[in-house]
Amino acid sequence: MLEECFGNVRLLAPLIHNITNYVTANDVANALLACGAGPIMADEPDEAEDIAAASDGLNINLGTLRRSGIEAMLRAGRKTGALGHPILLDPVGVGVSALRADTARRMMRELGLTLIRGNISEIKVLAYGSGSARGVDAGRADRVTEENLREAVGFVKDFAARTGCVTAVSGAIDLVSDGSACYVIRNGRPEMGKVTGTGCQLSAVMTACAAANPGNTLEAAAAAVCAMGLAGEIGWSRMREGDGNVSYRGRIIDALYNMDTETLRKGARYELR
Amino acid sequence: MLEECFGNVRLLAPLIHNITNYVTANDVANALLACGAGPIMADEPDEAEDIAAASDGLNINLGTLRRSGIEAMLRAGRKTGALGHPILLDPVGVGVSALRADTARRMMRELGLTLIRGNISEIKVLAYGSGSARGVDAGRADRVTEENLREAVGFVKDFAARTGCVTAVSGAIDLVSDGSACYVIRNGRPEMGKVTGTGCQLSAVMTACAAANPGNTLEAAAAAVCAMGLAGEIGWSRMREGDGNVSYRGRIIDALYNMDTETLRKGARYELR
Amino acid sequence: MLEECFGNVRLLAPLIHNITNYVTANDVANALLACGAGPIMADEPDEAEDIAAASDGLNINLGTLRRSGIEAMLRAGRKTGALGHPILLDPVGVGVSALRADTARRMMRELGLTLIRGNISEIKVLAYGSGSARGVDAGRADRVTEENLREAVGFVKDFAARTGCVTAVSGAIDLVSDGSACYVIRNGRPEMGKVTGTGCQLSAVMTACAAANPGNTLEAAAAAVCAMGLAGEIGWSRMREGDGNVSYRGRIIDALYNMDTETLRKGARYELR
Repeated sequence: MLEECFGNVRLLAPLIHNITNYVTANDVANALLACGAGPIMADEPDEAEDIAAASDGLNINLGTLRRSGIEAMLRAGRKTGALGHPILLDPVGVGVSALRADTARRMMRELGLTLIRGNISEIKVLAYGSGSARGVDAGRADRVTEENLREAVGFVKDFAARTGCVTAVSGAIDLVSDGSACYVIRNGRPEMGKVTGTGCQLSAVMTACAAANPGNTLEAAAAAVCAMGLAGEIGWSRMREGDGNVSYRGRIIDALYNMDTETLRKGARYELR
Repeated sequence: MLEECFGNVRLLAPLIHNITNYVTANDVANALLACGAGPIMADEPDEAEDIAAASDGLNINLGTLRRSGIEAMLRAGRKTGALGHPILLDPVGVGVSALRADTARRMMRELGLTLIRGNISEIKVLAYGSGSARGVDAGRADRVTEENLREAVGFVKDFAARTGCVTAVSGAIDLVSDGSACYVIRNGRPEMGKVTGTGCQLSAVMTACAAANPGNTLEAAAAAVCAMGLAGEIGWSRMREGDGNVSYRGRIIDALYNMDTETLRKGARYELR
Repeated sequence: MLEECFGNVRLLAPLIHNITNYVTANDVANALLACGAGPIMADEPDEAEDIAAASDGLNINLGTLRRSGIEAMLRAGRKTGALGHPILLDPVGVGVSALRADTARRMMRELGLTLIRGNISEIKVLAYGSGSARGVDAGRADRVTEENLREAVGFVKDFAARTGCVTAVSGAIDLVSDGSACYVIRNGRPEMGKVTGTGCQLSAVMTACAAANPGNTLEAAAAAVCAMGLAGEIGWSRMREGDGNVSYRGRIIDALYNMDTETLRKGARYELR
């Protein structure tokens, strides 16, 4: 099931409009291409509707946020929503500045978001107004572990139900919920945290999966999480003596490029709660 | 001949001013360095003339276009033109938004462009006002094939003659014309389309070739196309089990870095029509 | 000693706020992660104080300067200064435009800079108002060699004393001075100049080292220079047939990722003058 959702990206080649940060934009574009989707990055308000109209989904990312980008997000988001295409919000560093927190809340209020993806601290900021984030990383106190898994699943289900968004929380254990069910996913490697942008890439791939699987957003989102985590595992298995985080970054996207549905079916590790 | 044009980049080390998108800027800079040129990226209007005055050519790219960048393009373009240095326009995604189409036309009208490089859909938008582009990629219906090659050559020659710009159309078969002659080039690999930015890199390298070969723009542009395509072939030949599009991206630029005139002379595959 | 300064980055994991160019931002983020620091890139004035308040140091880089970024630099810089955290200025291409020169001088005047790092032409522009820079590279006439080393050390000491900034001049021979002592460092490879952004990465790593070693800025800066140069040497030793500047770029950051204090202790080549 999940592997078919991922395979549909290669079949349908959705074009994804990204309003995203300049730090990881290149990796995001290559990750989308690796999965069979097409990327377009554009954040000028005056072409936002045009780009959205030509695209199959919108990926909004708050990294390197600029005021002018906010209007582009809103204009592109309204157009994408009117077309019935998915909109994802990645609230990068939302706990670090008032501007990011205000912008995230504005997107949640003014756009019909389909998906939200972040680390646990970011989602807690959206839920409660605060979290223990350190920069763009989750705070230690917030982390999802086997010990607090039950509460974490409850939190994510509740957040998804209240917001009406399929919500993905990334970490050592990933959670993806639509408010009723929750995928608990154990793919991935801790070393992915030493590569900038693996979260941004996941958000883009998740948007592409949702665009390629209309009406099946929860499974699409879970498929993207499994695929990205598995790519991290496969990429790590190819590391050689002397390799480091930049080699790893390339190997992760390379693994996405080579991922077929059979590999994903065998490698995905998840349970439904 | 073509290989000497490419070799002149290493000999003369032209400094290229790039007003370009943030998605592929890093690869563009490394591709220029790989060929022996120097890159400078700058898109603030208030320093546009200064940067242009210090540079040997200007590469204008419409990806991630912002309104403020348009003024920088015009100011840098006027200065570059006044110095008699080449100006290239890469109309990325020109069919996707009115802003990009208007901006491309404005550059063609207000600046004395030397070169235009794009995929066939983008050049058709410039010629006719419409094309079958899908995002930043050429539409299937537009593609240059052995079957429609004769018409395509005629189209490119006509476009180059009408605009007065050496025009390069990138695709499975590349065409480069000054309005009289047309290079038909068969270097390259289809997998280059799965790496973001190979077109942006080619535009930058083409600007560097033109800057290093004043009065010889057609051959300079054709040399850049052959070199980039051949780098794609050499890079592909070095791919190993498990490699994907990010490995390939690095291997292409690495092949440019190692390309000498002898390699280019032997590997360039073109005919003149 | 120097190796302990570098090791403190892994121990303390400082979060570094970067207001930097979009060409090399990804490499800068991965280089910081490779050393154990955390990166955050943010250049919107309206969140500048918030980001600075959450960070342990500020890295200001003038590449791809935009007017709006200048206010972000000033607001973030004042906050960082008020917190007693280090501020580094990397005056990329300061000799190429009046805007960059004015901005660099404004930062030196209005902020309590802790460190300045650039190539010799850039530092000469700051000292005398002119240099022989070519784009973002040092001019040949300015270069530090064994022949002019004595004068160069005197120049850097004098500049550091006058500005009150620990000053690092990068080149074939690197110089780092606080106005009294001067480290003369002979790590590195000339081929690093063919990789875009190695200077930007060094500035970020230097900021992280300074943040992790309060009260010990000179040694921290020298440690960063030795580590980056040694990473360049180790990366180069891993180059294989057919590799080029993009492979090299990855191998340099990979070497930073794998660098332990013992490797740095053995590999650092410096003298104090």
